[in-house]
Order: sequence, then structure tokens, then C-alpha cells
Amino acid sequence: MNKNIKNVIITEVGTRDGFQSEKKTIDTQDKILLIDDLVDAGFKRIEFSSFVSPKAIPQLADADQVIKQVKRKSDVTMTALVPNLRGAIRAVESKIDEIVVFLSASESHNKKNLNRTINESLIGFEEVIKLAQDSNIPVHGDISTAFGCPFEGEISVKKIVEITKEYKKLGFKGVTLGDTTGMATPPVVTKTIREIKENIPDFEITLHFHNTRGVGLANVLVGLNEGITHYESCFGGIGGCPFAPDATGNICTEDLVYLLHEMNIQTGIDLNKLIQVAQKAETILGYTLPGQVMHAGPRLKKYSVDNVPTATGG
Amino acid sequence: MNKNIKNVIITEVGTRDGFQSEKKTIDTQDKILLIDDLVDAGFKRIEFSSFVSPKAIPQLADADQVIKQVKRKSDVTMTALVPNLRGAIRAVESKIDEIVVFLSASESHNKKNLNRTINESLIGFEEVIKLAQDSNIPVHGDISTAFGCPFEGEISVKKIVEITKEYKKLGFKGVTLGDTTGMATPPVVTKTIREIKENIPDFEITLHFHNTRGVGLANVLVGLNEGITHYESCFGGIGGCPFAPDATGNICTEDLVYLLHEMNIQTGIDLNKLIQVAQKAETILGYTLPGQVMHAGPRLKKYSVDNVPTATGG
Repeated sequence: MNKNIKNVIITEVGTRDGFQSEKKTIDTQDKILLIDDLVDAGFKRIEFSSFVSPKAIPQLADADQVIKQVKRKSDVTMTALVPNLRGAIRAVESKIDEIVVFLSASESHNKKNLNRTINESLIGFEEVIKLAQDSNIPVHGDISTAFGCPFEGEISVKKIVEITKEYKKLGFKGVTLGDTTGMATPPVVTKTIREIKENIPDFEITLHFHNTRGVGLANVLVGLNEGITHYESCFGGIGGCPFAPDATGNICTEDLVYLLHEMNIQTGIDLNKLIQVAQKAETILGYTLPGQVMHAGPRLKKYSVDNVPTATGG
Repeated sequence: MNKNIKNVIITEVGTRDGFQSEKKTIDTQDKILLIDDLVDAGFKRIEFSSFVSPKAIPQLADADQVIKQVKRKSDVTMTALVPNLRGAIRAVESKIDEIVVFLSASESHNKKNLNRTINESLIGFEEVIKLAQDSNIPVHGDISTAFGCPFEGEISVKKIVEITKEYKKLGFKGVTLGDTTGMATPPVVTKTIREIKENIPDFEITLHFHNTRGVGLANVLVGLNEGITHYESCFGGIGGCPFAPDATGNICTEDLVYLLHEMNIQTGIDLNKLIQVAQKAETILGYTLPGQVMHAGPRLKKYSVDNVPTATGG
């Protein structure tokens, strides 16, 4: 069911996509601590923050400070979201390893989110990639609301293919399909991946799922089945969706790593160390995080027959 | 990925497996209300309670009262767990439609849970099936800890096959593989189903997953991939595992129905009515249930571009 995939690369997006929806201001030093611990746990790709306007997302206003203070390693790629040339200039000055630009597949969502049309977004990327290339920094492109939009409903796969073609033309490294509002389901994921692969072969696809409707890891299985080896997730399952305030957020990195390791797919991540990161994040945030493995523990934890309650039935 | 499955049968086990781990005593009239609503939502199989000793599980002591007062329909099968002859006598007197017996695949868990060996359990089933057959009531057999035991670790698939063979010999209708403590993962599920099908063809397999480690619905995808069309779940994702007190419980019926319907697999269940049941259960239980779709709403719910917060990035 996974096309004999042996290795998967996980980009941890907890301090970016996870933290951006947190109301409480998180201390810069806590962010640095968590990112250093993630590196120590074995992550090779970390989307540590966004170079967006501090007015738009005050929580991420310290991106420059964070990247300046985290421990850098030559084999760890530190990426950040960049909405425009202004952000790109900050990103280049901060010496990040990769720039991630983004737009929404839905015109209404792009308008609401970035106050421009999709076409205007694509044109804006040209100056970003020029600056990045001059600085030898690769650019990766995200597509938000790739599997559904809360305003427009279904997103046509044709639109995703068109945008991805533009990304390739612009010289991007790859595309991330972002399930911003947790609307992805197995048939939509399958169809979208197949159409992209057919139309734009040899272009790296990353999947970014939210668990808003409980099917995030089922969608990962579908991705594996289609041969996709790049995923994005948040420690503790933090993050959220403004359209579903009571639902949980991104898929949880510990649960994802647990699933992959049990399927004999390697990630290079130490699950126990990762669980400690999630537990630290829980303490920092001050509420119970939705992650399951961080609370239930790894599968083969054994108990003594004595001193446990009785579980009658199935 | 689902072998063209068009229909799936879901047994709702919320008022049994869900409620048995609730500390607060739930009013008999509330149970009846929820079960009647489940029937109205289209469920054709409901495991409404257990005929176990009221001392062992006080929460389910009212099984006889519940089944006496719920609305019965000729096309709805009301099942209950029965641990021994005493329970079977109560079940027959209560005119339930199907008896479910159970044992654990792990000797230590069976001993802890039922205070007897697996072999003693199997011998005990003989008098249950005799009584049931005399009363024209089918018997179904559950295997607890089928995918892992908190005391013994991995469970040998050979053991599951042996027990299932005994179940068929005894004249049971089928077998439920219960992931009592949430240890099932895709490779174990695949292997177990294949071995049973190879050794005991034409015997109905039902899958009962918990979401203790977040991979419950991923396991359902695996089940579908192996051609399994019978699943058990709890409204609101209630239930639990005494070995992982902080983790969530059974897979959530709304999330499961949502996933199946999105995959174009029919269940006969009205998702909106089911969400209302889960919301009622949330009010009765008095805390936020882990179900996601009951909080996020169905996928294609649309919003106006105005009056919603901004979601920057993927």
C-alpha cells in the first residue's frame, strides 16, 4: 500500500503554522529552545517562521531574532514563508536556507488572505525568485486551499496543475499542496497528485494536511500510495483553522512519525526525543495538545498485569 | 485503494464501549434517547450495552432496562456483549437480536479481564451458543487485544487464526478483531486480515479500532484495501483505554462516516443526524468530545468572504 517507500522527509512546521494561530504570545527564547530540540531529534527541514508583516501576524514578528539565535547545522534546511519582496529581503538578510512563497488556489481566499489575485501573486513571485537566485537561495512554492476552499467549495484540479506549471517555470524547487482548512479526502488527494505527476513530471510534491475532520493520517496513507515522500506536520498536532475554531489543527508530527516507523518507513527522527519536544510545547502553551502518541506513548510500552484497571470487552 | 467497495456496515458501540469507561453515571433515559436517535439516523447495527455483572461495570447495569424501552425495528440488529451463561440468560430474556461473546488474544489480558484462560473462555462459549441456538439468536465473537497487548506486546497472528477457527467451529456468525488498547498499525492489520482470509475463508471479519495513537482511520483505509466492509465505532469518538488515560478512545463514527461518504462508499447513515447525536452526547457527558467532524462540520460548508479571520499561509 505504500509502493515500497523506505524513507520519508518531514518538514516540521510547528513554530510557523502551529504558532501563528496561538493567541498567547510565545517567548522568542522558547521558540529557539524548541527548534534546537527539533534539530537534536533529527529533523532535516524546519519551517521555523514567516517573514510577514508583524501587523498581520504579531506572533511571528520575531522571525529574524529566532533564526539568528538557533543552532544552525549544514545538513538542516531552515525555511520560512515569505509573502512578498519585502519579506524576501528580510529572509535573505537572515541567511535562511530556503524561501517558501505561497498563494491560494481559490481566488476568493487569495484575495482575502493576500489582497491580490492569483495572477498578481504569480507576478510578485518573479522579483522574489530573482532576489533569491542572486543570493543562491532556493525557492519552494506552497498552494493554500489546494483541496478545498471554505468560500468556493471544491477546487478544480486543473487550477492546481496550472499553478504548479507556473511554479516549475519560475524555477521553484517543488510544490506543497496545503490543506489549509482541512478539507482533503482520499479521492481528491489521489486525483490531484496523479494529475500533477502526469502533467508536470519530475517536480517534487510535498503534502501538508490538517486533521480538522479527523482524516489527516488517512490522507498521508493515500499520499504514500501515490509515491509521495515529503510531508509537513506540527509537533503536538497544534495549529488550527479559522473556519473550524473547535477542531484540531495540522496533522501531528509524533503520530505521523509513529505511523511511518510502524510501517517500516524511516524518517531519521528520534520519536522519543520528538515526544519530549511536544511535551515541552504543551507546557509552554499551557493546554492539552491534540497529539495522541505524546499522551499514549509508543506502541510497545508494556505494563505489569498488576495495578492496572480492568478493560472489559473490545 | 478500496477494492471498489460500495457499501460498509457500521456497528455503533458508543453506548457500550464508549459509556463503559465513563466515570459519571449516565441516566438510562439518556441512553434510550441516544439509541432511538441512532436508529433514526439510519444505523442497522447497534451494540447497545453489555450483560456483564453490575459489580464489574456499574455503568451498564441497566442493559435490561435500556433494551426494554428502546424502539425496536425489524431491520435493526440490537447486539450486546455477554461474558458467560449468566449474561446469556439475561440477553435471551431481553430478546436481543444477536449475542456477542468475547475473549482476549493475550492470555495475560484474558486472565486479568475475565479471570480465566483462553481455553476456559472457549469452553464457556459452548453453553452460551447452545442457549442462543435454542432461542434462535445468532452469536458473534470478539477478540480483544487482537493487534497488540499492553502486557505481552505483539500478538501472534497464528493465535488470532486459531481462535477464529474455533469461533467458526462453534457456529459463530463472524469475528470482530478488537484493537482494545489502540496498538493496531497498517502492517499488522494487513497481515492479520490476510492470514484469517487464507485460513478461514467465508467468515465475516469486523474491525474495531481505537484512535489511541491517532492512526484509527488510517487503519480503516487498510481494512478497506483488504476488502473488509464491517467496522465498529463510537459517536463523538468516546471511549478510552485504561492503559492510556490521556489518549482518546474508539474511532469516531462521524469522522468514519464522513471519510466513507467522501470516498463514495455508502453507509445508509444520515451524517447530519449523526452529528446531532454526537452533540447531544457531548451535552449529556458534559465535556468536549474528541470527534472532529461534529465540531468542524461537513466538508462543503461554505463561508462568506466577509466576517472571517484571515488564515495566512498553508
